[in-house]
Amino acid sequence: MKSRGLAALSASAPITRFDFERRDLGTHDVALDIAFAGICHSDIHQVRQEWGPAIFPMVPGHEIAGTVTAIGNSVTKFKVGDLIGVGVFIDSCRICESCKRGLQQYCENGMTGTYNTVERDGTTIAYGGYSNNFVINEDYAVHIPANLKLQLEGVAPLLCAGITLYSPLKTWGAKPGMRVGIIGLGGLGHMGVKFAHALGAEVTVFSHSPSKERDAKAMGADHFVVTRDLATLKPLHKSFDLLLNTVSADLDINIYLDLLSLDGTLVVIGLPGKPYAVNVGSLLNGRRRIAGSMIGGIPQMQEMLDFCGEHSIVSDVEIISADYVDTAYKRTVESDVQYRFVIDTSTI
Amino acid sequence: MKSRGLAALSASAPITRFDFERRDLGTHDVALDIAFAGICHSDIHQVRQEWGPAIFPMVPGHEIAGTVTAIGNSVTKFKVGDLIGVGVFIDSCRICESCKRGLQQYCENGMTGTYNTVERDGTTIAYGGYSNNFVINEDYAVHIPANLKLQLEGVAPLLCAGITLYSPLKTWGAKPGMRVGIIGLGGLGHMGVKFAHALGAEVTVFSHSPSKERDAKAMGADHFVVTRDLATLKPLHKSFDLLLNTVSADLDINIYLDLLSLDGTLVVIGLPGKPYAVNVGSLLNGRRRIAGSMIGGIPQMQEMLDFCGEHSIVSDVEIISADYVDTAYKRTVESDVQYRFVIDTSTI
Repeated sequence: MKSRGLAALSASAPITRFDFERRDLGTHDVALDIAFAGICHSDIHQVRQEWGPAIFPMVPGHEIAGTVTAIGNSVTKFKVGDLIGVGVFIDSCRICESCKRGLQQYCENGMTGTYNTVERDGTTIAYGGYSNNFVINEDYAVHIPANLKLQLEGVAPLLCAGITLYSPLKTWGAKPGMRVGIIGLGGLGHMGVKFAHALGAEVTVFSHSPSKERDAKAMGADHFVVTRDLATLKPLHKSFDLLLNTVSADLDINIYLDLLSLDGTLVVIGLPGKPYAVNVGSLLNGRRRIAGSMIGGIPQMQEMLDFCGEHSIVSDVEIISADYVDTAYKRTVESDVQYRFVIDTSTI
Repeated sequence: MKSRGLAALSASAPITRFDFERRDLGTHDVALDIAFAGICHSDIHQVRQEWGPAIFPMVPGHEIAGTVTAIGNSVTKFKVGDLIGVGVFIDSCRICESCKRGLQQYCENGMTGTYNTVERDGTTIAYGGYSNNFVINEDYAVHIPANLKLQLEGVAPLLCAGITLYSPLKTWGAKPGMRVGIIGLGGLGHMGVKFAHALGAEVTVFSHSPSKERDAKAMGADHFVVTRDLATLKPLHKSFDLLLNTVSADLDINIYLDLLSLDGTLVVIGLPGKPYAVNVGSLLNGRRRIAGSMIGGIPQMQEMLDFCGEHSIVSDVEIISADYVDTAYKRTVESDVQYRFVIDTSTI
């Protein structure tokens, strides 16, 4: 299938238009026209080979929202015209314990990423969502609720940023009466605020930027704490049940551990460059926990999108055209985006 | 009440015999004759002021097994002649959420340690269990099952080492089918093996010392892994549900994190000198968790002792006399003990 996309031809080249071929529609595949593709910080890490050697040309993008245009003969989950979303992975082994439990993101044989990898046939290069169309096995795509049709630009980031925050909130049981803190109000954090609020939790945002308070409260935050002066955190000791750290920049994690009450958990979402230096005493004192969480599986992605449909939740985005991607990358690295860049793929 | 004990008169002085007075029996107190007092590594840390300034003369000891000799007018829990145990704390605030839940070890106003502190009246120095007798509020002592009467020397270490391992095994649900690893086979670790085995889990011991394999298996371990060559750990990746790290020496915690399967937890028991350097990627990959756990509350201490009575579980000990304590300290620091030193307090 002929495709036109935006590609990095090398780790240092600007993003440019790129014509390529996707694989033909298989019997269990669906084809889609992409309407919007979100820009995730991990796109930049991969383009710049900050996570290891990459495959070029690379068409990044794993926050994909569009409409089904064709289906393979055996497809039952989708029909032409359906709204459809694709996230961080397009396949997995299907037979390990994690896959059987619908936790494909933890596939013991390794999930197949949406781009910068080779598909499980061992030969087909996987190209991502900065593109006009896509082909995917129906089992790895999800339905977008019809009532979000006019907000597809805000739906695209749900497929990575959204599920990445929704999943830990569900794993650790966010609900009314639970005191949840979201560290960092960016592309990830702002989704955490919306979900935690919609789940009924009492939500506190920790941010370096006092200017974000109004946004945070509009998204559903009950409290806003500026973290420039760490003395402001002292009175909050032992007063959170769950903290989600979305900040990948280095920070003293022990300051936040001390904010957890008995049996509280700090969940790491962002991947920092350096190991955390964890004061073990902080863990012992109050039976505290640190955990990691990575995106979410297909069943939970569907659950999350249905939840978004019910609660009218989408990501706050800046819509950009194809020519702006390099600038958007620069601004994303500088945390200068409210709160996610989304490419209008009609401009490609 | 007149007492004779063993005290450190300063951080560097040898342990010597010491005559002192304990507080009089209050209406809610019980008095006991101590039969055996275990030597915990934390005794040494406190004597040597490795955990901060200490109160001298210090009578250490918080693994205490004995017999009730007198009770206050309002005491209902004990009668004269009962076997009785005292652990790491002798009081707490009683009104915070932790105390109300029977988790006095996490008292939000600070538990009162068994020694090297001042009682909650603000004046009475707390002297520990290296001594012939003791006075304690009945609410902070526990019953020792009658069938363990002839093994009191092995019961004493249950009051700290025992509960410290029993508690996390219960918190994280050790049971048949669960794959539990115990890192380190010392005073703490050997109790973890016995409890995890009695709870029905599949137990693996990780130890530096190949010579300990026979002991580990006799205590109930199903598998024994020598950790000198880290290559032996590779095939064990993702194959544990729960790891308890009892080693306070510095180790690369990430090597063990990688042994956890999906949603597995590594619980830290020992307090290392340095922060852990935690690779966040290891946490994200498999939604792994690191947690801390610190001793256990009074209800759980009683539950643990009842469990020991039912399953005939005691600590493996070397009984020593008063004159051997300095040597025992030296050997404890060198991990040269099988598996806990216990002072026969009749020798004081």
